[in-house]
Amino acid sequence: MNYRAVLNAVSALIVFVGIAMLVPFGVALGYREGDAVALGVSAVLTAGFGLLVFFLTRHPRELRVKDGFGVVCLGWTAMAVFGALPFLLSGSVVHFTDAVFETMSGFTTTGATILVDIEAVPRGVLFWRSFIQWIGGMGIIVLSLAILPMLGVGGMQLYRAEAPGPSPDKLTPRIRQTAAYLWVVYAVISLAEAVALRFAGMDWFDAVCHTFTTMATGGFSPRNASVAAYDSAAVHWIMTFFMVLAGSNFALHYRAWRSPRAYFFDLEWRTYAVILLVATAIVGGVLVIRHGYEIEWAIRSAAFQVASIMTTTGYATDDYELWAPGLRYLLLVLMFIGGCAGSTAGSVKVVRHVILAKAGIHEIEVAVNPRLVRGVQLGRGRRVDTEIVRNVMGFAVLYVGILGVSTGMLSGLGFDLETALSAATTCLANVGPGLANVGPTDNFAWMGASAKWLLTGLMLVGRLEIYTVLALLLPSTWKR
Amino acid sequence: MNYRAVLNAVSALIVFVGIAMLVPFGVALGYREGDAVALGVSAVLTAGFGLLVFFLTRHPRELRVKDGFGVVCLGWTAMAVFGALPFLLSGSVVHFTDAVFETMSGFTTTGATILVDIEAVPRGVLFWRSFIQWIGGMGIIVLSLAILPMLGVGGMQLYRAEAPGPSPDKLTPRIRQTAAYLWVVYAVISLAEAVALRFAGMDWFDAVCHTFTTMATGGFSPRNASVAAYDSAAVHWIMTFFMVLAGSNFALHYRAWRSPRAYFFDLEWRTYAVILLVATAIVGGVLVIRHGYEIEWAIRSAAFQVASIMTTTGYATDDYELWAPGLRYLLLVLMFIGGCAGSTAGSVKVVRHVILAKAGIHEIEVAVNPRLVRGVQLGRGRRVDTEIVRNVMGFAVLYVGILGVSTGMLSGLGFDLETALSAATTCLANVGPGLANVGPTDNFAWMGASAKWLLTGLMLVGRLEIYTVLALLLPSTWKR
Repeated sequence: MNYRAVLNAVSALIVFVGIAMLVPFGVALGYREGDAVALGVSAVLTAGFGLLVFFLTRHPRELRVKDGFGVVCLGWTAMAVFGALPFLLSGSVVHFTDAVFETMSGFTTTGATILVDIEAVPRGVLFWRSFIQWIGGMGIIVLSLAILPMLGVGGMQLYRAEAPGPSPDKLTPRIRQTAAYLWVVYAVISLAEAVALRFAGMDWFDAVCHTFTTMATGGFSPRNASVAAYDSAAVHWIMTFFMVLAGSNFALHYRAWRSPRAYFFDLEWRTYAVILLVATAIVGGVLVIRHGYEIEWAIRSAAFQVASIMTTTGYATDDYELWAPGLRYLLLVLMFIGGCAGSTAGSVKVVRHVILAKAGIHEIEVAVNPRLVRGVQLGRGRRVDTEIVRNVMGFAVLYVGILGVSTGMLSGLGFDLETALSAATTCLANVGPGLANVGPTDNFAWMGASAKWLLTGLMLVGRLEIYTVLALLLPSTWKR
Repeated sequence: MNYRAVLNAVSALIVFVGIAMLVPFGVALGYREGDAVALGVSAVLTAGFGLLVFFLTRHPRELRVKDGFGVVCLGWTAMAVFGALPFLLSGSVVHFTDAVFETMSGFTTTGATILVDIEAVPRGVLFWRSFIQWIGGMGIIVLSLAILPMLGVGGMQLYRAEAPGPSPDKLTPRIRQTAAYLWVVYAVISLAEAVALRFAGMDWFDAVCHTFTTMATGGFSPRNASVAAYDSAAVHWIMTFFMVLAGSNFALHYRAWRSPRAYFFDLEWRTYAVILLVATAIVGGVLVIRHGYEIEWAIRSAAFQVASIMTTTGYATDDYELWAPGLRYLLLVLMFIGGCAGSTAGSVKVVRHVILAKAGIHEIEVAVNPRLVRGVQLGRGRRVDTEIVRNVMGFAVLYVGILGVSTGMLSGLGFDLETALSAATTCLANVGPGLANVGPTDNFAWMGASAKWLLTGLMLVGRLEIYTVLALLLPSTWKR
């Protein structure tokens, strides 16, 4: 690994985080809740440290393939550490472990929180908490690619390492332009949501914070009761709609701008939409028949919770822990599915499940007819590259392996099976809430430090889609 | 599919089951507990029906590749139905659903039981219950291949469809001879265990019944308390030893007869042994430190329970439901691993896990170095065929998929997550007991009929290692 070049690129990201802190600093100045100093100092410390390293590592060599893994992993870790400063300096979070957990949960758009009383936190810090989800959603490296010229070299490598999905979509041949287009689409849809929420009755602060965390499928809310604090059908449906958009491929949104039918020509999006509808119908039906919900509330709650879990956002308007075991299990399965590739959603992604299902069926066919050479196809005879199939299967194997090992570690720490499995899943899939003791009305404050660090690591592994982090475990990656 | 040829082969298997019933019939005559008539009538009905179908389908065409799936699936289903007759006719089991569940659990060597008071069942029927596990362990089709000449045609296909593991070991070029060798090894080791248990103080009936179910890694016991009924270190260690043997590849036992070092040259067996030892050490350590067990009892209980679960036998000498959550989870993981390919054990098998782990690591290497062409290797540079890697990955994907769907169905029936997941796992992996409401001191009698049928199906899917059963879901398999 080319350490000088890696540190140089990472330091640029740190400077960027420092600059980003100026936004909540401005918010804090406006609201005068005493957190402006903490945010200002954080910004100066972060940007200053970044600049120092940047100048110490001037004139780096070019980034190579291997270095991309280092930049992305180290960069994201640095972001979680420096991004934790406002929580610590403002006194909103006391322990370093908790502050890094919260910040990693933010940048990775997980949304698991260790805050017990969110509304006691001053608004500048709360704004930062939502803002880092928005930045992390589309990807800070994608953003940097668009605006920082020095990352242009080796940019495609970095883009691949951070972008969600098995084969990131290049909208244009030039990676900087792709990154810029994606951020513009992201910003425009975000603006639309903020305005819609404002019109639905939220004040601007809540509307903007919720927009950040909806569009990032992050799920942090400035309210203790999450979105349940708003007893408004309009708010719930607006957020459901934008969660579904945020869980779709942003490259597809870009294409759909010219031809809205693009959605229906996309096999992954069709599958995503069908799963959302079917799951909503099942949940809504059981809520009416078995739990005696009114029909309007059953449909609204079902659609909201299904979209929230499947897009890995993690908001709640209802306590699904009180639902029938079958519904709770269905939500756990939706956590495993996740949104579309190229969206801000986490988890395995719909397209990978489609490829896995087709590869599984293909293997049965091969068992019956060993000379079959059709291969795995994705709609209209488009054959999927053998390497992508292998990559996706390897991804699934590693995903299950990581979940198995981390569930085991949490069980070893004394967690019951349901809590251990769902905490590991919810963090690796970047959802936020899980089941049992990490349900939608619980938080992660009660856990010991080792569990928190393990889950913090899982969030990063999940957000960077496994390979990027695991590559650092290979000795060959570290060779110069 | 060539229906006439399939029915002809299946009818031969049914005749065979009828003949096999004469053994417990003899036992029943000896003990005079009133079940001889039921066993005699079952034998006549079964053999008679089989002969009738056999003569109606005389002069069949040759079995082809596709037909093999039909013979094995239909054959095993028929075995479970006709094998249930002694339970029903003797009045030991009242409901058809329960009787088929118990018989399928027997033939597939699962060992899950719906009997509430086992010791109330007369000895002839109890002998049958253990005997079907012994037959199912090595595989009734393997046995038929050895003794019935008419299955010789297309025999390799049948052997592959029934034999455990990704690429069944052919000891000799002639499939009939391989089958005969395997049965001889199986019978010789079984004889050794029966004698050892008799010397350790069991009466002959219990020694023979427990031998059948140890060697088959089945786990049915003629005692209500399972092996815990024997408070004898000798019995526990003898059974642990033979469970470990039964979970090893029988082709390897055959080879080791000439050179015992063969075990240590076998990567799968070494991995199997290391997992057994490490798991025993962890469980034993925690039992001493945290649960205050005496050291001798801790080691014995740990070794027994670990071997019992990992080889998918399912006996219990201790109630592991009372152990720490981490240990219970470890046992659940061992259920997923299973024994060696070519053993009588169920589950995914050690070799598949080795291949999966290596394939996962290989994909990380490919992510770092996309031009890598090393492939997946199994010890000393032996490259694994791409097709086998793909087959194993497909197996894992389908396995997890089947578990996911069936856990969902059980949750939908109202089971809590731990019971649903562990019941599905224990049946698909042919273990027997699970966790929570299907723990080692529970039984499956309390479940509704739909749950029982689902689990009965899972046992068959697991025993025939997925592809064989799922192949029947493809329309192309049914074409003539």
